[in-house]
Amino acid sequence: MVRNNHLTLLLSCLVMLPLMVESRIRHFKWEVNYLPWSPDCSTESLLIAINGHFPGPTIRARAGDAIVVELHNKLPTEGVVIHWHGITQFESPWADGTASISQCAINPEETFIYRFKVDKAGTYFYHGHHGMQRSAGLYGSLIVEVAEGKQEPFHYNAELSLLLSDWWHQSIYQQMVDLHSKPFRWIGEPQSLLIEGKGRHNCSLKAYEEDKNKDPDLVPTTLCPKNNKSECAPHVLQVEPNKTYRLRIASVTSLASLNFAFGNHKLVLVEADGSYIQPVTVESLDIYSGETYSLLLHTNQDPSTNYWASASIISRHPKTPPGLAILNYRPNPSSLLPRSAPPTPPKWNDTARAIAFARKIVADPLRNTNPPASAIHRIVLLNTQNKINGYTKWAINNVSLVLPATPYLGSIRYGLHSAFDFHTNPPEDFPENYDIFRPPQNPNATTGNAVYKLKLGSTVDVILQNANLLTEGTSEVHPWHLHGHDFWVLGFGDGRFNWQRDAARFNLKDPPRKNTVALFPYGWTAIRFVADNPGVWAFHCHIEPHLHMGMGVVIAEGVDRVRNVPRDVLGCGMTRRLIGPHGP
Amino acid sequence: MVRNNHLTLLLSCLVMLPLMVESRIRHFKWEVNYLPWSPDCSTESLLIAINGHFPGPTIRARAGDAIVVELHNKLPTEGVVIHWHGITQFESPWADGTASISQCAINPEETFIYRFKVDKAGTYFYHGHHGMQRSAGLYGSLIVEVAEGKQEPFHYNAELSLLLSDWWHQSIYQQMVDLHSKPFRWIGEPQSLLIEGKGRHNCSLKAYEEDKNKDPDLVPTTLCPKNNKSECAPHVLQVEPNKTYRLRIASVTSLASLNFAFGNHKLVLVEADGSYIQPVTVESLDIYSGETYSLLLHTNQDPSTNYWASASIISRHPKTPPGLAILNYRPNPSSLLPRSAPPTPPKWNDTARAIAFARKIVADPLRNTNPPASAIHRIVLLNTQNKINGYTKWAINNVSLVLPATPYLGSIRYGLHSAFDFHTNPPEDFPENYDIFRPPQNPNATTGNAVYKLKLGSTVDVILQNANLLTEGTSEVHPWHLHGHDFWVLGFGDGRFNWQRDAARFNLKDPPRKNTVALFPYGWTAIRFVADNPGVWAFHCHIEPHLHMGMGVVIAEGVDRVRNVPRDVLGCGMTRRLIGPHGP
Repeated sequence: MVRNNHLTLLLSCLVMLPLMVESRIRHFKWEVNYLPWSPDCSTESLLIAINGHFPGPTIRARAGDAIVVELHNKLPTEGVVIHWHGITQFESPWADGTASISQCAINPEETFIYRFKVDKAGTYFYHGHHGMQRSAGLYGSLIVEVAEGKQEPFHYNAELSLLLSDWWHQSIYQQMVDLHSKPFRWIGEPQSLLIEGKGRHNCSLKAYEEDKNKDPDLVPTTLCPKNNKSECAPHVLQVEPNKTYRLRIASVTSLASLNFAFGNHKLVLVEADGSYIQPVTVESLDIYSGETYSLLLHTNQDPSTNYWASASIISRHPKTPPGLAILNYRPNPSSLLPRSAPPTPPKWNDTARAIAFARKIVADPLRNTNPPASAIHRIVLLNTQNKINGYTKWAINNVSLVLPATPYLGSIRYGLHSAFDFHTNPPEDFPENYDIFRPPQNPNATTGNAVYKLKLGSTVDVILQNANLLTEGTSEVHPWHLHGHDFWVLGFGDGRFNWQRDAARFNLKDPPRKNTVALFPYGWTAIRFVADNPGVWAFHCHIEPHLHMGMGVVIAEGVDRVRNVPRDVLGCGMTRRLIGPHGP
Repeated sequence: MVRNNHLTLLLSCLVMLPLMVESRIRHFKWEVNYLPWSPDCSTESLLIAINGHFPGPTIRARAGDAIVVELHNKLPTEGVVIHWHGITQFESPWADGTASISQCAINPEETFIYRFKVDKAGTYFYHGHHGMQRSAGLYGSLIVEVAEGKQEPFHYNAELSLLLSDWWHQSIYQQMVDLHSKPFRWIGEPQSLLIEGKGRHNCSLKAYEEDKNKDPDLVPTTLCPKNNKSECAPHVLQVEPNKTYRLRIASVTSLASLNFAFGNHKLVLVEADGSYIQPVTVESLDIYSGETYSLLLHTNQDPSTNYWASASIISRHPKTPPGLAILNYRPNPSSLLPRSAPPTPPKWNDTARAIAFARKIVADPLRNTNPPASAIHRIVLLNTQNKINGYTKWAINNVSLVLPATPYLGSIRYGLHSAFDFHTNPPEDFPENYDIFRPPQNPNATTGNAVYKLKLGSTVDVILQNANLLTEGTSEVHPWHLHGHDFWVLGFGDGRFNWQRDAARFNLKDPPRKNTVALFPYGWTAIRFVADNPGVWAFHCHIEPHLHMGMGVVIAEGVDRVRNVPRDVLGCGMTRRLIGPHGP
């Protein structure tokens, strides 16, 4: 028996040894291809899938691991890239997966190897970042657990995860054409909200919208498909009664801002965008596109029934039925319909409530560094809708971003300065007399591709300033996402930002660390970050059609320090000039 | 008055001077973009257009001119190339416009400049050659007139031109997915035939096909749209009575082999694929995808009425209504419907008739060089349908072509030999015991990308050998197109080719010069060409879905002689390795 025990120990060691080594490098082989599919059981269309799966495979790793994704592009004519949302890509800026910024798109039949480290435990995701390929379903979850031997600062029995998204029946190619049309054709509200890639659409809506005698206040809702057993039956979260679950939740929506809730259950938020926050108990979670949260769910309700999990649209007039999943208290069957209706979402346009919610997210000061006391570089970014040559665009300080053919990382690093408007410094403020409460006059709005050049190591404050749309009396929410960095959210406010008045009230005590933050209607949002990551980085509204319409900026810092740029990220646009000495 | 005459002369000279200079270089600025359109007035879909036009703009030049096309790709995520069908690209093989062969696809927002000479007067066209983008409408006419001061060997009063194509309501992306599915999903017959980009579809067909009690012999036809005034009203050819017109006609169909005719008029064929042929009078013209013809039309019929021009499907069981245009005898209004019905097409499956027609096309010996008396290199290419890993493919000598990520011109020229299967010589014949009259057994069918290496300057005979499909008792027509060369068509025959018997009967007297030739069911077609054009060239079935399923080969000759490869054609796949010295 002793001998047997020894043998078992030896075998265990032999088994564990490769496992421990493997835990440092996580290797994935992915193929990107079209997949005929219908996430909401409407007419099948082509989405962009990974290894035939929608959503794409979940990546799980531990903090400190290296991720290696061999991405083979099987799309016949489209290029592709994948962005690892929330991963800072320190020392690997070429792996950030942004077409025209960090790399040339991966061409059909090419294989590109993404290699990067995941430094920080947290909830992340990945998605396409070329044209509007994210909206075509190219996304999945990326979960980083604490390093071996480390502990999370909260207790839970098991873990669940949910990826939220939205879905249109129109193809992204048609959407891209529509968004660049005169007269402008907006893509409209999504046909469905998806939880883990499954949803249902309102099949009464089309007939209703075509009805000339319709009652504008009485939108009929018939959820389709009616058959619950189909491939788009609600996702099931299986739980045992009287346990604590960590639910990782991420929103990769193209447009929708969401409020997420469980029937009868409160939520304790503990993590946001990969940083620990002061635990806070809420009835429901506001989650904007690009954000991630972890929440603790105590299964302390009547175990004889199941409950709904529900995602509903906020901050836009909802025309989309809520996305539903089932919280299945075992041993009830998952098919047991919840006794109570899905939770009622808050009023979609209650901005005060939404801001109050956002202010509840504060850092856990024990587990986060505080921001530098002041910033050396201040940038104010006015968000406006503009007409440029008759096209409807979004512009930042009157400049609508049009990405160049040559990725900035290559053109800046190798001095190909004619690849974009290298010598212009884009505007860092907007005119004093601009009235954010009126539609833009914008006689000067232009398209552009100049870059905000930041001093490496400098502390930067950015004020996102919202304004009125082209239409009188409207302003929208924009979730802004920064690549390559986490930032501190210093505050939210109404109206026009005023340095003297508002900067004095910045939260420097416990500002949350985020990579995505909402800018509320007619308001401002202040963030601070340290430009400590050599590379070129996008900073943009995470609403996919808004980005496609130019709503973003590009920042660059310490690009001369970038070493060992893989040749694979070059080869398009003017980086073809680097071909030699065999060239002409 | 004298002074005035002098002034007029001077002004004429000043006006003509730039015109004469311009006649040497024809400069075009094109933008490729999606266009929401419906060529047959069915539901609008996205086609790929040039400068917002479908078909693309016509290029007109004179023999000896240089063509310069600045192509800017405005597709958001798709690469693009354009092939100049019938132009040999001597000394400019990188301008042949074949993705993966002559160049890297032009990425979104890039501009690529095609520069090439058009040596030989004739009727040509251009089209996309990446994925199935040709089927998405990316094509147009390319017409080369005789050089200044030269005369055509036939007389005509005026010129007309027609581009024939076919159209599906399904997107090319869905088609490409279907063609690479298990179980295989065929794209089916086109919904419409287009003349100059306009057609009508059979709107009774869908209901009929869904009808379980349908009579298989009674396919109802209702042409839609019924309204003649719509944007897809038939194209009008305006003519005056009692004149002679040169009609240039080109087929860029994806699938359909066509028979083209005018009601009540005979045709005199005078040119095929850019070479003069012995004038021949015919009732109608068989034209396969990739072929072009010039024909003389004498407007010698009753001038009080108009006549139909009609294109009908041959060589496949037709399910598509004929494409119609109106031959409008002025001064009749173009809306005057012809008194007589469109001409009746020949029986679709009368192969003997089709071969007899093909044999009528012989060279005008005064205006063509004769082939070398014999060939040093003989290649036999068996055309089969095969199953490979459960996918249905087309294979040549059991190898189904899958194009590599790296264009051959770059990988061969710069010694990047691992970019494809460099060291394999693809098979130049097929087993003696192969039975072309039975479905393939194909235990050895594979995919491959090896290249036929031809000695520069050598004369090559290629025998295209047809065979039975996977289904018992069927064999199809394949129009084969050779890039970079014209070839002589030495003959057509039934059954299995036999060198001793059949080569002796080759037509060496007046074989026509072509770049595209039909291979008939269960037959063979023999061609001869001189490998005198340094470069890498595709040779493939011009049926778009067949090529996409692997029905082609690649030939290379004298690639070491290729000089001054523009860097712009490199930068993808392994040609990224040529980036330096800045690279890692």
